[in-house]
Amino acid sequence: MIIIKTRMLGLIRGRMMSVMAGRVLTALPRSKARLLTSHPSQHLHSASSSCQKCELTSKRYNVQRGKFSAVSEHDLKFFQELLGSHRTVLGEEELEGHNTDWLRTVRGASSVLLKPKTTEEVSAILSYCDQHQLAVCPQGGNTGLVGGSVPVFDEVIVSTALMNQVESVDTWSGVVTCQAGCVLEALDQHVAQYGLMIPLDLGAKGSCHIGGNVSTNAGGLRLLRYGSLHGSVLGVEAVLASGEVVDCMSAMKKDNTGYDLKHLFIGSEGTLGLVTKVAINCPPRPAAVSLAFLGLQSFDNVLKTFKAAKDQLGEILSSCEFIDQSSMECVEGNLKIKSPLDEYPYYMLLETSGSNGDHDEEKLNNFLESTLGSGLVSDGTVATEPSKMANIWALRERIAEALILDGYTYKYDISLPLPHFYKLVEDMREHLGSNVVRCCGYGHVGDGNLHLNFTSRQYEKEILERIEPAVYEWTSQVNGSISAEHGLGFKKRNYIHYSKSLGAINLMKQMKKLMDPNGILNPYKVLPD
Amino acid sequence: MIIIKTRMLGLIRGRMMSVMAGRVLTALPRSKARLLTSHPSQHLHSASSSCQKCELTSKRYNVQRGKFSAVSEHDLKFFQELLGSHRTVLGEEELEGHNTDWLRTVRGASSVLLKPKTTEEVSAILSYCDQHQLAVCPQGGNTGLVGGSVPVFDEVIVSTALMNQVESVDTWSGVVTCQAGCVLEALDQHVAQYGLMIPLDLGAKGSCHIGGNVSTNAGGLRLLRYGSLHGSVLGVEAVLASGEVVDCMSAMKKDNTGYDLKHLFIGSEGTLGLVTKVAINCPPRPAAVSLAFLGLQSFDNVLKTFKAAKDQLGEILSSCEFIDQSSMECVEGNLKIKSPLDEYPYYMLLETSGSNGDHDEEKLNNFLESTLGSGLVSDGTVATEPSKMANIWALRERIAEALILDGYTYKYDISLPLPHFYKLVEDMREHLGSNVVRCCGYGHVGDGNLHLNFTSRQYEKEILERIEPAVYEWTSQVNGSISAEHGLGFKKRNYIHYSKSLGAINLMKQMKKLMDPNGILNPYKVLPD
Repeated sequence: MIIIKTRMLGLIRGRMMSVMAGRVLTALPRSKARLLTSHPSQHLHSASSSCQKCELTSKRYNVQRGKFSAVSEHDLKFFQELLGSHRTVLGEEELEGHNTDWLRTVRGASSVLLKPKTTEEVSAILSYCDQHQLAVCPQGGNTGLVGGSVPVFDEVIVSTALMNQVESVDTWSGVVTCQAGCVLEALDQHVAQYGLMIPLDLGAKGSCHIGGNVSTNAGGLRLLRYGSLHGSVLGVEAVLASGEVVDCMSAMKKDNTGYDLKHLFIGSEGTLGLVTKVAINCPPRPAAVSLAFLGLQSFDNVLKTFKAAKDQLGEILSSCEFIDQSSMECVEGNLKIKSPLDEYPYYMLLETSGSNGDHDEEKLNNFLESTLGSGLVSDGTVATEPSKMANIWALRERIAEALILDGYTYKYDISLPLPHFYKLVEDMREHLGSNVVRCCGYGHVGDGNLHLNFTSRQYEKEILERIEPAVYEWTSQVNGSISAEHGLGFKKRNYIHYSKSLGAINLMKQMKKLMDPNGILNPYKVLPD
Repeated sequence: MIIIKTRMLGLIRGRMMSVMAGRVLTALPRSKARLLTSHPSQHLHSASSSCQKCELTSKRYNVQRGKFSAVSEHDLKFFQELLGSHRTVLGEEELEGHNTDWLRTVRGASSVLLKPKTTEEVSAILSYCDQHQLAVCPQGGNTGLVGGSVPVFDEVIVSTALMNQVESVDTWSGVVTCQAGCVLEALDQHVAQYGLMIPLDLGAKGSCHIGGNVSTNAGGLRLLRYGSLHGSVLGVEAVLASGEVVDCMSAMKKDNTGYDLKHLFIGSEGTLGLVTKVAINCPPRPAAVSLAFLGLQSFDNVLKTFKAAKDQLGEILSSCEFIDQSSMECVEGNLKIKSPLDEYPYYMLLETSGSNGDHDEEKLNNFLESTLGSGLVSDGTVATEPSKMANIWALRERIAEALILDGYTYKYDISLPLPHFYKLVEDMREHLGSNVVRCCGYGHVGDGNLHLNFTSRQYEKEILERIEPAVYEWTSQVNGSISAEHGLGFKKRNYIHYSKSLGAINLMKQMKKLMDPNGILNPYKVLPD
């Protein structure tokens, strides 16, 4: 074992070294500027637009349409009078991208998409739809992965695309208040000018809407550091199915006045109300960010390295991500991007963010010295320059996009106790054998969140039936969650009982009945048939 | 202006200096061990036990008893058969401490207190009470400050005192699972052996139960760093009024499977269900803790110092507390404890916690150098040795206890936008003039949370009527919250509309009706009459 010396990793001011167990591979220029624009979100929609239409959801999944009215000429007239014809979008072609999910796995047949600009307009739309028994599908950036953001039949799509105003930024407390349609990346850029950041980051940041993030309780790359949206979101304004506006728009960090209703709208995927505004607690934007990319020989080493990172990097650890060899092969092979490390069975990305670059550098160096020295980590490279960090992040963030190029992706998003984390991938790989093109695992290991994916050339019902419910049963047996951050949407709603008790599901159904008695809000989603 | 040099503040290994604008006051021995046992919680109950009985709540507040049954011999027989006679506590004297709140401002007249040990026993109790229309008051450590934890009339008290088992600690993910009756401080000590900490700390930690903390969404001294319990609590098990057990006991950090029902029980003060178990995400216990105690000449300087602390101390800032001169006079005068600083109109406590003591020391020194140098801060002392830190913390944490010794405390717990934070104290001081003994403000300035207190020799209705609703109107006008962390309980429920919209209150009432149709759970609390 060759021990890396601290000086080899970055005590040279202005530079840090990329290292592999004792030898220097590359010298990366160092900068304290943060990665802002290089996320691969711009690639998100290219994959879907170039491909054929997928089968209608109602047919593929044999769904029974609810007893809703069909949109009539009379209804369209109401919408056009309310919004004008340019914000009442009609036509199959115009709606195609809004009827189909990004993964091209589900497709609805809505004939109208509405683009309100204000809460009052959303209220008028929902009130009308509720009175006329028209089903509604709320839609943000349509980057969801469980079929929650597209219609199943002919639901009226209500898009938040034009609700993109930032209302205020309180620079004392660090709270931003904005409409639901603000794009995550744009919002993050907006608060950056005040030295703040949105405590949420995910691959789809260039397209997803903050209202959709809140409605799906999005997790992403830095939950480890900044916690869940249930903690970060201070206020929510939502419109109920009846059109009633529920104002829980406190911008206070602490407000214990009655039941905290905003949590009903966080993660309920638009089935209890349509989120129109949010207030978010923004932490200070870190002065320094570093990214370590590591190669490891065993999953046991991955876990031990995570634990060492928590101990040694403590408060500056802002992300702990994991990629297995199969995922890496996919992103390198399908997207022709290159990893800076040789082949390893497992890879980790460890990001640090802090207020003092020198301190962070020293902590990271000490950490790498000890983990490389002890053999936990076999190989590593460190980047602090934005473009270099973006290149490394791309290896992790573009896996989903790379998988699509195999053909069809069977996508699972599982929470597991850490000792079971990778065993699920191994067991499923054995279970599926050569039936699938690929079986791979990656994700937020620091949060116990595995992204488990299988691919085949095209959708095959037989493969799906070999995967489900096997993957859910396995997860349930170790008390994991069958959806860590993607939600249940349309595709997973009937598997809810693998993670929730009957009593809890019954209470959810009662709440749905209470808040949306006619069931018009995002039907066929979240709750089981 | 004399500028403090970095070296004066602690580059000497093993020691840090207490400083006052350029001159060294005291040298405090330095240790990385953490303050664990010196919280003043042991004083919490001495104040009440030594004093006279206060007036019955029903009389003082002229409350109408709900249409509940009175506890009969038949009921007592059921409870005794279920729990045995030693866990079915009867007798006025035995129940006195459970009928009266710690502040001695409200008093109920319950004749029976039950001490279940298991969720099943809680379920049997609630099911019986619901069927027999017996009202129930859930009680943890009875340290609440708004009359939420004691009966108003003769409600059956269900105490979690014997539900104090820790079920598991997942050392990989850092999650503790335990029963609701674990005392916060004991739980924190328990997880300390695994290098973890409970992300919640408050003055009452030696008495309060974690179930009560969750039920009241307790905030405390380190919310600034670790966020609210809505973020930290991963799982909740609660028993509904019907006796049905709702199991939301995920120990996963991410679980988006259906509506996140646990949030209904966090902060609903036992009115929607009785919390029996919780799973909590525990951050790593910091290796180093430092506490700076500062004297300042203006409140504007307090705000600017907070902002500078966020910028310069960033990720290691773990607490930012505030004390005004009047609060300091009270704690020094009534409890005979001494501040290490001379008199200033305003004081701040800034705590740092991190994984590397040397780095933290350097950051804190730089911060103090710049804030003392620029005149923002007039005077300061830094402690890292546990007993010294405890002495400083006592100045902040024992204010509530000190105020009681004035006679009667009118207690307000307000969230305000920071620019308005201290103006409320000044305006109320002017408004009340010599009617009160004291008008003082202290609290969690880093979270915008003001503890506003008035005292008089004894309770006077006229004073109360001069304070309320004036204090709530003022708060509402600047979009603050009339209860930041204490909750509404009994005393503030009828002022909820100052912070919540009618639509939101109506939805809360519907949820109460849904989950507790007979209204037996903690009646006269949270929701308005």
